[in-house]
Amino acid sequence: MTTAATRQIRLVRTPAGIPTEEDFECVAVALPALEPGQVRVAPTFLSLDPYLRLQMAKRHLSGNLLPGQPVISELVGTITESNDPRLEPGQTVAGFGAWADLTTIAADGLRTLDFGALPPSLALGVLGMPGLTAYAGVSELLKPGPDDVLVVSAAAGPVGSTVGQLALARGATVIGIAGGPEKCRWVVEEAGFSACIDHRSEDIATRLRELVPQGPSQYFDNVGGELLRTILVNMKPHGRIALCGIMDDYNSDTRSPGPLPLEIIGARATLMGLVVYDYEHLRADMISTVAGLIEAKKFAWREDVSEGLESAPSAFVRLMQGRNFGKTLVHLKS
Amino acid sequence: MTTAATRQIRLVRTPAGIPTEEDFECVAVALPALEPGQVRVAPTFLSLDPYLRLQMAKRHLSGNLLPGQPVISELVGTITESNDPRLEPGQTVAGFGAWADLTTIAADGLRTLDFGALPPSLALGVLGMPGLTAYAGVSELLKPGPDDVLVVSAAAGPVGSTVGQLALARGATVIGIAGGPEKCRWVVEEAGFSACIDHRSEDIATRLRELVPQGPSQYFDNVGGELLRTILVNMKPHGRIALCGIMDDYNSDTRSPGPLPLEIIGARATLMGLVVYDYEHLRADMISTVAGLIEAKKFAWREDVSEGLESAPSAFVRLMQGRNFGKTLVHLKS
Repeated sequence: MTTAATRQIRLVRTPAGIPTEEDFECVAVALPALEPGQVRVAPTFLSLDPYLRLQMAKRHLSGNLLPGQPVISELVGTITESNDPRLEPGQTVAGFGAWADLTTIAADGLRTLDFGALPPSLALGVLGMPGLTAYAGVSELLKPGPDDVLVVSAAAGPVGSTVGQLALARGATVIGIAGGPEKCRWVVEEAGFSACIDHRSEDIATRLRELVPQGPSQYFDNVGGELLRTILVNMKPHGRIALCGIMDDYNSDTRSPGPLPLEIIGARATLMGLVVYDYEHLRADMISTVAGLIEAKKFAWREDVSEGLESAPSAFVRLMQGRNFGKTLVHLKS
Repeated sequence: MTTAATRQIRLVRTPAGIPTEEDFECVAVALPALEPGQVRVAPTFLSLDPYLRLQMAKRHLSGNLLPGQPVISELVGTITESNDPRLEPGQTVAGFGAWADLTTIAADGLRTLDFGALPPSLALGVLGMPGLTAYAGVSELLKPGPDDVLVVSAAAGPVGSTVGQLALARGATVIGIAGGPEKCRWVVEEAGFSACIDHRSEDIATRLRELVPQGPSQYFDNVGGELLRTILVNMKPHGRIALCGIMDDYNSDTRSPGPLPLEIIGARATLMGLVVYDYEHLRADMISTVAGLIEAKKFAWREDVSEGLESAPSAFVRLMQGRNFGKTLVHLKS
């Protein structure tokens, strides 16, 4: 067991509003020799996810990310050194580690990947946590069927696009909401949604009433705030809403309010909070379902890949500006 | 078919905040001869309900109550004159009519009462709309069982006390929230709840954590506002909440906010809007269930009865101040 040197991306300060590249720094550090049960991983893909912004704001279930700490996210990589009998150098694994050229991870927290011909980066997107989030929301909470019209926001992202395509596979009609004509075109032409509303150029309530005069029956919410209220008050009575993400809150110190009780009662709606950590037991089902759709050519995904560790801060800034398009990843040459 | 003279309670002006007696007036009016399909009813009991305050504020699903209009509520009464072949003078009926000595009602909107030995006034309380509201919330939305701890606010009222006792009959543990020691004592000693928190003298969150360290699994909400948020953030994960009433909003021009999406997600909660009008098809089931519990001496109810038509405004004011105790009724001598 030897020590190792690596570059590492750290948080310099808690971002104010939308993060900037200056909120991060890239530093050289020495990693100590591995302890029993640890392995060294060379990441090939880092996962950039909006919840990291909430960790920086000290208000995420999974813990805080404080100034001076390395950014930890899910990643895919290759084991370079192992002090655990279950894992050996050369294996491809996924788990949580630092944004770095090399990172030390407990073997217990890693899973080996066997996606056959599918790219390992999918373990961070539609076959990973975003896929599991979508799968739990569709199969456990919303349960759409042929009579349902499901709306999903952030529809070009890995969660939203998976929600929509899983609902399509169950026979539902699916309408996306995304920002900009390029994303909306992809959502309809590649992911196969019935329609996609561009929240940058269209009035959502007006467009929704045109598309679904009787109102949608289901909504998978990645945004919160005013959008959530707008959809709720335009839903068919007895609609179901999965609350999953609060993009409206991520860059803000104030927390956007939820719908009024009067609005929830008036809509006879059911709102359900979704936390992906509760659904780890569904991961194998999710992978077989989504991989099956991919192999049947009934599933589109999109990745937004930046090259090189040093690009991670700017890629995260673009993600939090909503300027990414697809699952945001950083690729590191191994 | 003849004309008739009656006194009638009218709204004089839209109340500001908690209503006052001066918001109402008692006027003498002449009622025209009955049209086909109409009957004349002499009310024996008027139902006073919080939703009437929302009608006055022009924000209730069931319609508005404007200055100059007679107050219309559910009532029980005796038919004095009928122009419909299905109903005849002397029958006891329930339906919606004016706060008056005599009121004209369409026969289609009336139901005849046959409660056996039980008092007809129960048609306005635990065997009427409040009972149906509670029954729908318990049997269709919350579905408590022996593993559940259910909390209900406004626990001494007809909805809250019925919710709790139906949940007890299903084996759940039930905790009430009510205002003042007298109501709390009744909720525990007569209605049989495990405990009742006095929101006037106790800190609800502290008391709730003492009573249920793991958090309640269900909440039937008659209040909204801060109380709803307090219960939500102290619930067991994956709890269920029925949203039924918004006492916090009734006397206010501003509408109290709901829980934050972040709080709903963090609690993994399910919130469900309940509107009693959707559950008319359950009325017979509700009556047989509640009447069965009453006959088995497993069900307590309480009525807060004022005497005489002219007492209706002051009784409504007391209701909206939370100074009533039990189902608020006005009794009219027939």
